[in-house]
This record gives sequence, C-alpha cells and structure tokens, in this order.
Amino acid sequence: MSTKRVKNYVNGEWIDPENSGYIDVENPSTGEVLAQTPLSTPAAVNRAIDAAAAAFETWRHVPVARRVQPLYDLARLLRDNEERIARTLTEEMGKSLPDARAEMKRVFENCEVACGMPVLQQGDKLVGSSYDIDGEVLKLPLGVFTMIAPFNFPAMVPFWFLPYAIATGNTFIIKASKQVPLTMQVITEYIDQVGLPPGVFGLVNGDRVVADTFMAHPKVKGVSLVGSTPVCRQVAEKCAQANKRFQAMGGAKNHLVAMPDAKIDDVIRNMVTSCYGCAGQRCMASSAIVAVGDATYETICRRFVEESRKVITANPLDPAVAGESMVMGPVISAKAKAFILDMIETGINEGATLALDGRGLAVPGCEKGHFIGPTVFTDVKPGMQIHQTEIFGPVVVILKADTLDEAIRIINDHQYGNGASIYTQNGYYARKFKLEAEAGMIGVNIGIPAPVAYLPFGGMKASQFADIKAQGKAIIEFYTEDKIVTERYWPEEG
Amino acid sequence: MSTKRVKNYVNGEWIDPENSGYIDVENPSTGEVLAQTPLSTPAAVNRAIDAAAAAFETWRHVPVARRVQPLYDLARLLRDNEERIARTLTEEMGKSLPDARAEMKRVFENCEVACGMPVLQQGDKLVGSSYDIDGEVLKLPLGVFTMIAPFNFPAMVPFWFLPYAIATGNTFIIKASKQVPLTMQVITEYIDQVGLPPGVFGLVNGDRVVADTFMAHPKVKGVSLVGSTPVCRQVAEKCAQANKRFQAMGGAKNHLVAMPDAKIDDVIRNMVTSCYGCAGQRCMASSAIVAVGDATYETICRRFVEESRKVITANPLDPAVAGESMVMGPVISAKAKAFILDMIETGINEGATLALDGRGLAVPGCEKGHFIGPTVFTDVKPGMQIHQTEIFGPVVVILKADTLDEAIRIINDHQYGNGASIYTQNGYYARKFKLEAEAGMIGVNIGIPAPVAYLPFGGMKASQFADIKAQGKAIIEFYTEDKIVTERYWPEEG
Amino acid sequence: MSTKRVKNYVNGEWIDPENSGYIDVENPSTGEVLAQTPLSTPAAVNRAIDAAAAAFETWRHVPVARRVQPLYDLARLLRDNEERIARTLTEEMGKSLPDARAEMKRVFENCEVACGMPVLQQGDKLVGSSYDIDGEVLKLPLGVFTMIAPFNFPAMVPFWFLPYAIATGNTFIIKASKQVPLTMQVITEYIDQVGLPPGVFGLVNGDRVVADTFMAHPKVKGVSLVGSTPVCRQVAEKCAQANKRFQAMGGAKNHLVAMPDAKIDDVIRNMVTSCYGCAGQRCMASSAIVAVGDATYETICRRFVEESRKVITANPLDPAVAGESMVMGPVISAKAKAFILDMIETGINEGATLALDGRGLAVPGCEKGHFIGPTVFTDVKPGMQIHQTEIFGPVVVILKADTLDEAIRIINDHQYGNGASIYTQNGYYARKFKLEAEAGMIGVNIGIPAPVAYLPFGGMKASQFADIKAQGKAIIEFYTEDKIVTERYWPEEG
Amino acid sequence: MSTKRVKNYVNGEWIDPENSGYIDVENPSTGEVLAQTPLSTPAAVNRAIDAAAAAFETWRHVPVARRVQPLYDLARLLRDNEERIARTLTEEMGKSLPDARAEMKRVFENCEVACGMPVLQQGDKLVGSSYDIDGEVLKLPLGVFTMIAPFNFPAMVPFWFLPYAIATGNTFIIKASKQVPLTMQVITEYIDQVGLPPGVFGLVNGDRVVADTFMAHPKVKGVSLVGSTPVCRQVAEKCAQANKRFQAMGGAKNHLVAMPDAKIDDVIRNMVTSCYGCAGQRCMASSAIVAVGDATYETICRRFVEESRKVITANPLDPAVAGESMVMGPVISAKAKAFILDMIETGINEGATLALDGRGLAVPGCEKGHFIGPTVFTDVKPGMQIHQTEIFGPVVVILKADTLDEAIRIINDHQYGNGASIYTQNGYYARKFKLEAEAGMIGVNIGIPAPVAYLPFGGMKASQFADIKAQGKAIIEFYTEDKIVTERYWPEEG
Repeated sequence: MSTKRVKNYVNGEWIDPENSGYIDVENPSTGEVLAQTPLSTPAAVNRAIDAAAAAFETWRHVPVARRVQPLYDLARLLRDNEERIARTLTEEMGKSLPDARAEMKRVFENCEVACGMPVLQQGDKLVGSSYDIDGEVLKLPLGVFTMIAPFNFPAMVPFWFLPYAIATGNTFIIKASKQVPLTMQVITEYIDQVGLPPGVFGLVNGDRVVADTFMAHPKVKGVSLVGSTPVCRQVAEKCAQANKRFQAMGGAKNHLVAMPDAKIDDVIRNMVTSCYGCAGQRCMASSAIVAVGDATYETICRRFVEESRKVITANPLDPAVAGESMVMGPVISAKAKAFILDMIETGINEGATLALDGRGLAVPGCEKGHFIGPTVFTDVKPGMQIHQTEIFGPVVVILKADTLDEAIRIINDHQYGNGASIYTQNGYYARKFKLEAEAGMIGVNIGIPAPVAYLPFGGMKASQFADIKAQGKAIIEFYTEDKIVTERYWPEEG
Repeated sequence: MSTKRVKNYVNGEWIDPENSGYIDVENPSTGEVLAQTPLSTPAAVNRAIDAAAAAFETWRHVPVARRVQPLYDLARLLRDNEERIARTLTEEMGKSLPDARAEMKRVFENCEVACGMPVLQQGDKLVGSSYDIDGEVLKLPLGVFTMIAPFNFPAMVPFWFLPYAIATGNTFIIKASKQVPLTMQVITEYIDQVGLPPGVFGLVNGDRVVADTFMAHPKVKGVSLVGSTPVCRQVAEKCAQANKRFQAMGGAKNHLVAMPDAKIDDVIRNMVTSCYGCAGQRCMASSAIVAVGDATYETICRRFVEESRKVITANPLDPAVAGESMVMGPVISAKAKAFILDMIETGINEGATLALDGRGLAVPGCEKGHFIGPTVFTDVKPGMQIHQTEIFGPVVVILKADTLDEAIRIINDHQYGNGASIYTQNGYYARKFKLEAEAGMIGVNIGIPAPVAYLPFGGMKASQFADIKAQGKAIIEFYTEDKIVTERYWPEEG
Repeated sequence: MSTKRVKNYVNGEWIDPENSGYIDVENPSTGEVLAQTPLSTPAAVNRAIDAAAAAFETWRHVPVARRVQPLYDLARLLRDNEERIARTLTEEMGKSLPDARAEMKRVFENCEVACGMPVLQQGDKLVGSSYDIDGEVLKLPLGVFTMIAPFNFPAMVPFWFLPYAIATGNTFIIKASKQVPLTMQVITEYIDQVGLPPGVFGLVNGDRVVADTFMAHPKVKGVSLVGSTPVCRQVAEKCAQANKRFQAMGGAKNHLVAMPDAKIDDVIRNMVTSCYGCAGQRCMASSAIVAVGDATYETICRRFVEESRKVITANPLDPAVAGESMVMGPVISAKAKAFILDMIETGINEGATLALDGRGLAVPGCEKGHFIGPTVFTDVKPGMQIHQTEIFGPVVVILKADTLDEAIRIINDHQYGNGASIYTQNGYYARKFKLEAEAGMIGVNIGIPAPVAYLPFGGMKASQFADIKAQGKAIIEFYTEDKIVTERYWPEEG
Repeated sequence: MSTKRVKNYVNGEWIDPENSGYIDVENPSTGEVLAQTPLSTPAAVNRAIDAAAAAFETWRHVPVARRVQPLYDLARLLRDNEERIARTLTEEMGKSLPDARAEMKRVFENCEVACGMPVLQQGDKLVGSSYDIDGEVLKLPLGVFTMIAPFNFPAMVPFWFLPYAIATGNTFIIKASKQVPLTMQVITEYIDQVGLPPGVFGLVNGDRVVADTFMAHPKVKGVSLVGSTPVCRQVAEKCAQANKRFQAMGGAKNHLVAMPDAKIDDVIRNMVTSCYGCAGQRCMASSAIVAVGDATYETICRRFVEESRKVITANPLDPAVAGESMVMGPVISAKAKAFILDMIETGINEGATLALDGRGLAVPGCEKGHFIGPTVFTDVKPGMQIHQTEIFGPVVVILKADTLDEAIRIINDHQYGNGASIYTQNGYYARKFKLEAEAGMIGVNIGIPAPVAYLPFGGMKASQFADIKAQGKAIIEFYTEDKIVTERYWPEEG
C-alpha cells in the first residue's frame, strides 16, 4: 500500500523504525488519511537516545557562539518556507491558516531568543569570595533532553524547548504527536539542512511507549511535556523518581473578566478571537467569561452570542473562506468531538442556558470532518462541570460576578491556572488582577495572554508541573546546571 | 521527670505539641541526655501549616523592603550570640567549636544575601512586546514552604532556605533534626525577637511523620531536604506527584585529586582539614583522595597518614583542647559508629591497606562517647565498597590514577557528585577539571569547595534531586513564581 | 571665640585643616550662628586624596563580603541615632522633622542596597568564547572617588554614592555643603566607629576650591555632584578633559499633570506635600501643575490654593508645631529668599495671577529667619520666566492644557527633565505619560517620584550630566571598571 | 574626470554632498588612487542629523523585536558577501585578506548580539516598592547617535556601535574614515537593502568638520569615536560641555609578558601574529614584549627575531602570497611610514639595539606602496620614547623584568592601558596579572586579547575616555536611558 509513512530522524538520518506498528494520520476536516505514523519500539527509541548521548560528548565542547549558527539558518529556512509548513499544519490539525501562521511566528521568535545564548548563558564571576579566592558559576549543559509534543501546536510547542536545549549544548529528541506528526516531518527536513552534527537533534514517532522509554533511559536528563494534567502528573512523578528534570504543562480553563468600564466593542471582538481560535483547542484559549455587574453581564451575553454567530466554521483549506476574517476549523478527532458534545449535554443538564448551539452543524463536502460550531452557555455557575472541566473545543461559558474580588475568587478556586485576562482601562483594577489572579499568564485587554518568546511561558496550579517555565531566558536554567567553582592558587615567587 | 523538653514554635508561640511521644537528645561526646524531642503528630504539624498559610495572605503583600528588616535584625542577634549558639551546637552534635563557628558564619552570610531581596527579586519589564503592548515578569511568592534539616549542620542548612523563603514573601516551617534539635531551639529564640508576624516562621520537631505531613498538605508549596539519597528520592517523587516544588540534597563522596605539580605541604594540611572536620560528617567532607602518578601517590600516602596522626580526637568542649588547631569530636551516635566500624572491616576484607586505624580509641572521661580516630586506607580501587559508599565518618580512602583523565573518570563513574577538588598550580589542569569533573561544586586548591552564600550550593547526580540549587541568587527562582503579564490599554481621547 | 568649628576627617582622624579661613553656619529659622565651616585649602584637600589613594591599595583587595560589614554596622548606628541626626539636619537646614526623618530613611536604604554588593558586583563568565578559550568580565574598583554635596539633602545625597563607592572597593571623599556641614559631621562620628581602615572614607569642608582640587588631582577617578546646572556643566567638562568619571545632577522644574478622571481629593493633598516639602527646596519638588481641561483647571486652582493656605510656616523645631501634619520651615538663606521674592515680582510683571501670596509672612520669635509662605500663581503660560526658572522655594505655578498631548509638550519643551507625574486612574494615559514625558523619574499618582534606593535615581536633559544614574544597582557601573579577560592554557600531558 | 566618488547616505538615499571638496583615497600597497572622498560641509551633515532626528520619532515606538529584524538580514547579507567586502577593505587599507576576514567575523558577531535586544533591553519591575506602589526601570532610547570611524578597522569598529544603537531604538550616523571610506560604502549598499526606515541609518564622509558638526548639533545625543588620545580628549570635553554622551577610544601600547614557565614555541608564534597583524596598526596589536628573567629574555629575543624574519611583507592582494600563512601589508600612508621610520631612528638614538631592521624593504611592483618590514628593538628600557609612544607600525620593543611584579609595574606606569597579556601555564601568575595589570582587556596566553562581541570591549587610562565600554551587553547602557517609574492607583470600589 502506498500511504506515506512518517519517519524517524535518528543520528542525522531518516529511518523507518524497525518492528513498529502504524496508525493513520487523518485530516480532521475531511477524514482523509494523510499518512501513517509508526509506533516506535523501546529499542528504536533507545537507539535515538544513544545517538544523542554520543553526540553530546562533542557538542557540549563546541563554543556556544558556534552552536547557535545552525539556529540562525533554521530560523531563516523556516521563515522562507512558512507557507508550506503552515499548510501542512492546517491540513493535519485543522486550525485556520492565519492561526497556523501565527504559530509559526512563535517558532521563529524562539529560535531568535536562543540565538542570544552566547550572552545569555554566561555565568557569574565573584572576584574575592575570600582573600585570594574567587568564585565562579558555570552554566553547563547536562546531556540528552527530550520533549513530548501535543497535537494542537505541533510546530510552536517543540520550539519552546528545542532551540534552547541545543544552543545551551545539550542534545535533544522530540516525540511528535502521533495524530499530527507531519508538521514536524517538514520542519525536520529543514533542521536536516542546517549542519547540526548527527545526533544533536532527533525525532521519534509513536505513542506513550516512547515517553516511557524516555523516562526509563538513564542517559535522558530531562523531559518536557505539554499534555493533559493526569499525564503531567505521571511524567513528573517518574522523572522525579529517576532524578530527571521535568517540565509538564497540563490542562487549562482560562477566564476573561470584563469590568464595567471596559471598551465593549473592542472587548467582544477580542473575546471571540480568543475563544474560537484553533476551535478552542489551545491551552491559552479562553473558555470562561466572567462579567462584573449585571449590566456588563447582560451586554456581554448578548453581544458575544451575536458576534459568535459570525464565525465561519469550515474546512480551513477551502478556497472559498480564504479571505474571511474569522474562520474556525474542525476539532482534532471524532473522539474529541464526542467528548465535547457530551459536555454540551452536561451543561444543559446542569441547568445552564445554551445561548448558542454549535451542534449539528454541517459543512458541505466535509461530511467526515469533526466540526462543531461556536457554542455559548450563559447562566453558568462556578460549581458546574462545564466550568470545572477543560472542554478543549469551541464551547464558552459565561458567568456573572458582582465585584472584581468575586471574579478573582472564581478564578482562584479553579483547579487550573494557565491564563487569565481582565478587560478594563483602570490601572487599579489591572494591578489588583495582575497580583491576585492565580494564573501563570495574565492579560490586560488581551484575550490570549500567551507571552512573546522574549518572556517565559507557563501556568500555575494544575496547569503546570515544573519549577521553571518554558521560553525566554527562564528556560536556560532548565537546560543548564550551575557548577560552582571555588578557586585559588598558592603564592609563587616573583 | 525534669529533662528539658524541646518545643515547637507555631504561629508565633512556643508550644508543646499535643499527644506526642518523646525521644532523648544525647551529647555524642559523653552520652549524657541533654533534652527530649517531641514526635509531633500530623495534627500538630497541620496546625503549623495552617498558621503559615494564614500568615501568607498578609505577608505576601508586605513590601519586600520591609520583609527583609527582620532578617537584618536576626543576622545581628545571631552574630551577637554566636558563642552561645556554637556551644549548643557543639554539645549536641559533637563538632569542634571552630567548626561550629564556621557554620555560624554561613548562617549570617545567608541572611545577608537574602537582605538584598529588594533588588534581587525584581522582575522584568519589556516595553513594546508588540505595538502598544508591554510584557512583564513578576516574581511572586507562592505560599508555605517547608524544610527538613539534617543532624550535621543544624544551623547552616536551614539558613540555605529560611531567609530566602521569608524575604521573597513566602512563609516557612522547619522540621529540626530529632537528634540535634537544640540549636534550632536557640536560634528560634532570636527569630522570636525580630518581629515577624505570627505564622511567617514555624518550627516543628519530630520524625518522618512530620515530613510526610508536609508532603500531604495541599497548602504546602514546596519542600527542601538535606538527607540521604533514598530519602531524597522519596521526597522528590511524592512532591512531584503532588505538584509541589522540591529540592533534595543527598549523599556524597567527595574526591580530592592531587597533581604532581601541587604544593605538597599546603595540600596535605588542606586535605586533613577537609577530611576530618566534623569527624567527616559533612556532605562536603572529602573522603577519597586520588593521587596522579606513582610519586605523588607515594608521597601523599606517607604524608597524609603522618599528618592524620596529629589530629586530636577529644570532647570538643574539653577545656584542655581549646587551644589546639585540629580537634575532632565524636560521630553522632552509637549507630553511626557501628556502621563506620563495619565499613572499616569491609575495607580490610576487600583488600585495601589499613594504613591508619582509628578504632579502639579511648577518650578519657568520655567512655560513653562515640569516638573513632582518623582512619586511612591506601591501595584502594574504584570498585571497592569503601570507595562506593558514603561512610560519613573520619575514614579516608586513597586511590592512584596514572593521569588526570583517569582521575576524572573515577569521579565521573561514581554515583555521587557533590564536591570535587583538584590540587594543582596549572591553569590547564584546573580548567579541564572544572569543566569535566561531574560534581556540582568544584574546588581548585580548596579541600572543602562549599561555596560562600553569595553563590549557589548544590550537587549533581545522586547528590541532588532538584533543578534549582540552594543559596545565593539562584534560590530566588525556587521561592518565586514567574507571572507573565501582557498588557495594553485601548486608546483614549487626548 | 568659642563657636564650634567644623572639622575635616582625613585618614581616620578628625583634623582642623591648616591655613583655612572660616565662614558661619546659620540656623535659617533663627539666624543664629551654629558653627563655623573651614574653607580647606588645596593642600588640605590633597592630603585627604593622598590618604584615600594609599588606602585604596589595600582596600581593593579586601573581599567584597568583608567590605560591606562596616556598612551593616553603619546602617544600624544611623538608625539607632536617627533622631539626633534628624534634629541636627532640621536645625541647620530648616526642613521639618518629618522631612528630615524621611531623608534618613533613604540613607538607611542606600546602605542596605550597597550591602548586597557580594552578589551585585559579580562579573560574567563565558565558558567557551572560542575552542578552549574562556572570557570573563571582572567588575573592579578604580581608586579614589569624590562627591560634592548640596545643602538641601546633606544626609541623603551623599548616601546615593558613599556606600556603593566603598562597597565596590573604591575609597571616597565627601565635600559637605559649606552652608549645612553639621549633619555630615554627626554622620561621620558614626562612620568613624564602624572600623573602616583609615583613608577609605574622608570628609573635607570648604567652598569650590575643594571641588576644583578634586578635579585637578590625578588620583581622583571620579566626581559626583548635586548642584546647579551651570556648575554641573563645568564639572562635566573638567572631568571629561581629565578623563575622570562624573555624575552631575542639576536643576529641575517638576510638573504634575492632573487628568479629568483623577481622584481630586487625594490629588490635592498629594500635590501640597509635593510642592511645599523642604519649602520647595528639593530637586524632586513639584513646582508646576498642569491641569488638563477647563473644569480640571478650575477645580485645581481653587482647591490647591485652599489647601495651600493650611500649610503652617514655622520654625520646625518650635514645640508648638510638633504635632501638626504639614509644617514648612524657612528657605536656606537671606540670599535665597531675596531671589525667590524677586521671582514672585517677575511673575506678577509677566501677567500671571498671584492667587496666594507668601510674602511678608511673619513668624513670631523668628524675625531673623528666612521664611516665605506658600505662594501660588495661576494663569501661567509656558513662556513665562516663573515657569522656565527653577525658583527653589515654595512657589507653585499652575498651567492649563487642553489635552494630555499638550501637557506632555509643555514638559518636553522645558529645559529640565528631572521628575514628572501624572494623576489619573486610566492605564492608557499612564502608559503614554511614562513613555513620552521627558523626565528621568516618572510618577503615577505620586507627587514626588523619587525612587526608593532599590532603583536608580536620575534625571534627563539639563537635570543630569551623566551616563549612569545614582543609587540602586545602576551605580555599580559607575564605581567599577569592566576588565575583560580572554584566557586559555595550552594543553598539557595527561 | 572619471574617478569614482564616494557618496553620503542620508534619509535612505545615496547623495553627493553639496558644495564639498574632495580628497583622494589611495591603495597603500600601490599608491593607486581608488576613489575620492567628499569633505561634507556642516550643512550637509546637519541634513543627515535632521533626517535621523525625524526618523527617531517613529523608530523609537517600533517594537524592539521588529527593530532587530533588519539586523538579522544584514548579518546574513554581509556574510554572503564577505569576500567582496574583505577585498575592498584590503585594497584600501592594506591589511591581509585573512585579517580582513577576521575583521568581518566581528562584524557579524556584533549584529548577532544586538539581535538579542528583545531580551537584553528589558528593564526591571519591582512589585511593592512600598505598600500598593510599584517601581519600574524602563530602558528607553535617546535619539540620534553618531560615531567617527578610524582607518584601521573600517568595518568592525562601526559595528561595535551601529547594531546596538539601532536595535535599542535610536537612529545612527557614521562618519567613515576619509582615508578608507570604501568599505563602509559597500556595507551601506547592504544596509540599504534591509528595509530600515529612511533616516534610521546615515553615512557621511569628510574630515573633522563632520565630527565638529556632530558635537555642535543639539539633537545629537551621543558620539562614539575610535581615534588618537588627543582627539578623544577633545571629543570628551566638547560632549560633556554639551551634555552629550560619549565613548572615546584612544591610543595603546599593549604589552606581552612572558613568564619562564610559558610554552615557548606556542608563545613565539602567538606573539608574531599579535605584533605584525595589520602591520601593527590595530589598537589591540602588541608592540612591547616583557620577558621575565634573564633566560626567558635571551630566548625570546633570539626566537622572536628569527620568527619575525619569516613574515612576508607584500601587497596582500598579490596572488603569489595567497597561500602564505603570515603576510603583512603596507602601513596606511606615506605620512604614517615617515613617522614610523622616525621612531626607529629615535630608538637607535636612545640606545636600544635594532635587532631586526624593517627599513628599506622593497616590494617589487609596489614601489609606491608604504611598506616597512618587521622591526625589533631589544635592550629597551621603560623610559625610552619607543616604549612610551604608540608607533602604530610593525615595530616591536623587547624589555626585560626580573619578576612578574616588575613586569606589571612597567605596564602600570605606562600612560596607555588598552590590552595586556601574560604567557604562563601557572594559575597564580595568571590571576595576579588579571587583577593587577592596568589594562581594560587582559589576555592569558592570547596575544590579541580583543574580546568576542559577547563581552564588552574597552581600555583603561589614556586608552579610553568613557564610563561604558563598547560591544556586548554593556553598551546597552550607553544607548538607553533608565527611566524610573513610581506608580500607584488609588483604590476603587469592588
């Protein structure tokens, strides 16, 4: 049979992993099978780890200024081929082309930050820690790092880690999502061209066997994961037990708080983009709106539903929607769709008002696609499951609070704490929200407060199992070990 | 019965924990019972945690410049009362008075570094993360942190954490060592005087039930531990599972590498101090000497044994030894002594040469003390148990290597990687050692490469389960959460 | 005659400078002669510089952690004797006791920031600047630094520099204000007690001959000055010519912009404190109010005059005013008073409305004091001399602007750019003001935006001749030279 | 006449400056006239400054992440066209092609460091500078900066400044060397292609009238210069007087200290490269060797002269020398040659031994070139003019010292303090030298200790008039003003 087979990239070569089974990769808009992903065996994964471990022994000694040169080239190659990668991403994942391009922007940005490593990785020098004695802090790489990529950002999330790991002198292996492996296949084509020594970067495909093998191998020094909270917990526990570093980013339920003084027209537009981008399948998507005060609540409910109706649900590669401003594609799979429909049912049963129903939406020519239209619940209370659960689809719940304090309490009582935003022009409210809302990333008049790559990225509470956030200069701490030197020489003549 | 009872310090008050049993605290030089330690129950510990959690809600909002004022006062009080604390420490732990004073020096230093928090805790501000949008990184406290102290540094180790935790706006609870709880009792007397709001600092006494309670309580955000590697592993695993931060410092076997060009007279004196200080019971004690080359090996073996014989083993509070330069006290307990004697037996059986035998040493008037004299094995091979095991007593093994590469290999093949030192005047060897020896703390012509508090402290491999080291500016990352803000305001008139 | 004579402090000893003349120090509230200041000759000043240069050769090699110990002690001594110093300050300078205490607070703060030098002075270490080559940046002291103190903050301004200069390993000489030398006499009593080696700190008294001698001596590495803009310019020029570092802080005219949405009651109170503290004689005093919009202007004019009337002008040491909330003392001298009266005359002649007239005010029992009451001009236009000139007294001008843009233009067209504040609750206006108003220090709802010592202090435009600001971690760059090391060793055997 | 005319680049356009005279640009190897440089009038220069000032008003508000994009492109374009630029540089300046390529490497590096500005330009955020008050440090651009380039590094030196000035949001004008203007002409062709808004970068050609015009214009905020010490002094003085920032790098006489333990073969090779690269015309060239001890002195004198004889003096573009390892070209001009010959005469008259005489050397086919061969003086004493003067040609003086202390004293007594290097394997000597030798850039076993761009660049004493060094993250302080914000909002309801 002629379906394209996804490959691993090990020790600088493209290979089919031996003895592996395969599963289908589907276009979620059409149901078409795009390719097949191998389920790599532990032996196949170990081979990649061993290659990375061997490569580390020379890579660590390459001066940092040389280590970043391939990243400059990679950033350029990816930029030059942005459209090809974005289309691949849209085809296998279902997000709109503008969303795919926005994702690529963060990819470039992260490469660029890591290119600054010759300055950023410098350690400290204390002259005279005591008489005739000096102290130094050397920030040195550790060895092989790995990451386990999610389906929703198959390009961006790996680049929260990859460029930093490599620039600091470690070697790095990615496990792509088995549902959306093709984007990383294309990206790896470009990585292959930038002259990294074999083994410095590796790509393996498969299911959780791959992750388990990462965690079992003594040469793996750390694991980064973006996934569900239960998986985060397992990864954290196993890594801790094995004395490996870990960063595990989990679930989210991001709140948007609208204050009475907010500029309502701007707010509504901003909310819609925030809630329905990637069909709600992003860890920074907003899915809970909290309106402060009765009047604000009334207005938001009405205007948000109105604006939600204007979102076009379609196959994002359909040329007919190319010029539209707000296009929403399918969710990732039939299973995901079933879960979302189930949650909508739950919301109805819990007594929330289904103000906009995205079920039963038909996209002509895409009968096998996994589409759900914008869905809005009003009259939602904090106790309800549709508020407590990460639905990961285009389903928005609207709650009311009497005061900002109450709005913050709703956020702080929630298990997750990834992002949270406030809409207000008032500096007092903004400061209070920044300090008190328990979320790792805070927006002020920004619906998706995902930081640019020049700053760290990460959540709080059940949204993150990690001491150190991704991206920015923060992650350098994750990829380096502080080695502390105390040095003196006994006096010589002369 | 009238034996003094150790108390807990909870919510700003000294209390006897309810319903607890008690165990004896012994002077290891004399066997005398000094006091009794309560074994706090989970209920007693939870009360301390709840007080700390309540205190956090106001303490976090106190400006950082005010939060450090009590630490200035504490540093001064401890300095003014150094001798009292040092004598308490020596009495219950057995280390010499100069060693106890050296320990106190690090206590002051750590307070002083934490006093710099108004500068050090500043976050970042990115003007123009995009058009009209700014980014911020706020470094905010998390809540209640705890630490579990070891017997060997009952004053210093808590201060790797305490001042930083409090200065950053967290609240903090220490579990003192049940074997040496008195030093922290005295220190807490001074903490009690510096005006911290109730609950900001707490002290609980007991056994591993306390540690388990820390890890079980949802309000505890992090745990720091200095203990054995197996306990580290458990703490790491439990904390990860519960999404708590952890720093767990474990076992060590620190190597001293002597190069042929080293200044031998200085080296020998330095080695002796390094090996027998605190009777070898410190995580930074050296216990394995690697001599490079036959001639170096011969000289070191001869000279080191000679110099070891000069060490005076005695009750460190005996006025007769007050003026002596190198006094060594007992090990901590009969159990510890039995283990060490067993390891000496093992070394003999493994075929190492017992070049100096510290067994059977009698300290007049201290018949119940747990003394072992300086003990040296030569002809030791890397495979032997006396080289692989952390003996934690005054037992030194001497190995030979043909080259620096071989010496580094011996270090790198060892499970532990806390400290490692090289003796050489040669810059090439020093640099190679600094970069290649796998230990978190490296010394060059420094036998105990424990960094000053202005730099971080921490090991590698099985010596440390943690991403972030203790002390210095590094630990601020442990005690703060980066909250990332993306902020804009929509344009107004005018 | 028995009038107290101010002394110099040179090489650790109090001395009367040889061959100097003397001038009187006056209590500006009463005209009483408090003491006499010597006018040190160049020879006397050179002796102090030579002592400082000699002291540098050992002080620079004292480990930084030891260099800061005297600063800890000094901070404590000054705190313990705050009231004595504050009263001396009030007596010779005329500011209220609360103002004097507020000044002392900054003194302590600056000591505390400098105490953090063991962490803050660390340089950088780049492992692998090329193959087998490392780079280092060492932050080393330079030698003798000097500073020339103003009359208005005789305690605080010296401490923007002193603790940092000394902590970084330089030696330091202060020229006190000849009008208010007594505060530094008292402070130096305490400096004398903290164990600095002789010559590390020196104090000389006199007039501009002292400053000229500083600039002429080849061993002086830098000069800091707070004074008038013309003097700043001369100091900058001479220092540049002699390749010395300099920081020269000059004149100011600080604007307060009130937006229509500001909380007017809070604003008015805040403005009054800002304008009349130290009788307007501080470089961060506000002396120009810009109200945005007609209604705001009307309200501010009325309310500000009302509130200004409540300020009590009095001898600040008069027990009768001890409990009053807003007491204003005299200006510094008869000459200063004459200049201010002249400016008031000018304002009247320029056509501004004298809404409150502080002239002719009598303070019973203080007939020889230099008092002027709160004085307010309204209907002021940007072109007027009373707006363009730094009056340095309790004279406030109120202007009107139609928009925030116009208010900012008024600020930016002014020659000075020290501080500027906006009153608004609106985040958009606040951000615009922060970015666009050309002043080194910006306040948002803060009338005196003088930064705490944990941040730098300094102005823009004619208010500052310097690349590097005072205070905080910024000033470390001023007191250290980056020495850049490129280091390698050729390979050795083994 | 058809000789190529050098152009200015103003407001995004290539122009011939109006009313200017012209002078010849000569190939120093052949005397051939390559082009003519215009001598821009003040009016022409002011036009460039006004364009830059206008461009600043929009450029400053472009987000920093966008400001660096043209620098990425520029780095790539320059890399892709390295050979063309290097040949232009060699043709007009005379240095060898390998030296020209090494210069270009630093150009790329500096672009790359500046590309890190989105992280490096971040300011500080202090939450809670007091109750409910926050502090911020914003690092903002100032306006128009200028630089005055030297003839010897017409590509590298401008890039110590250009990328940083632009990345931080300032606008920037270069005055190229009138002797070697062509390299910057070519580089500006590429700058022209990268999409900078008109006026952000400008290039003007001419003589000191240009520099004077920079210093006279009120919109110019700073001047950087690499030139002679007397010119530095004038620039510093004028800038200080006008309250402009300045960095002025001046003369040098860099010492190489050889210790007895140094690896002599490596040392000699390293010294030769260091002394004769660019025919000795670089501010980091070594021109004084200090041998410690009689034996070292004897060996160095003999071996260095031997090795110096092997240097091939030739037209560096002569294909016959393309494969040679050590080729030395001419000095820059007949005038420079005359000065050098004069200094050789002086050395002879002072009594030094002319151990190798580079005078009278003929390069066939280059009779009009300004060649001098390697020239070595031995028996040189510190007092001699050939030791005190910067000769800026291939003339090396060798001195003897009895001890390292004496060698350091020779360095420290010299007026200049740019670079200084020690050859030793001994860590004690290296540390002592690093701390005590008064030079801004220190080498250990590195003859030319010019730091990579990831670290700062700058000298001490008469070699630098500046507080802040060039390159690396240090220079960001030069190109930004710290604006300090103190911010609060009064409480609102809710």
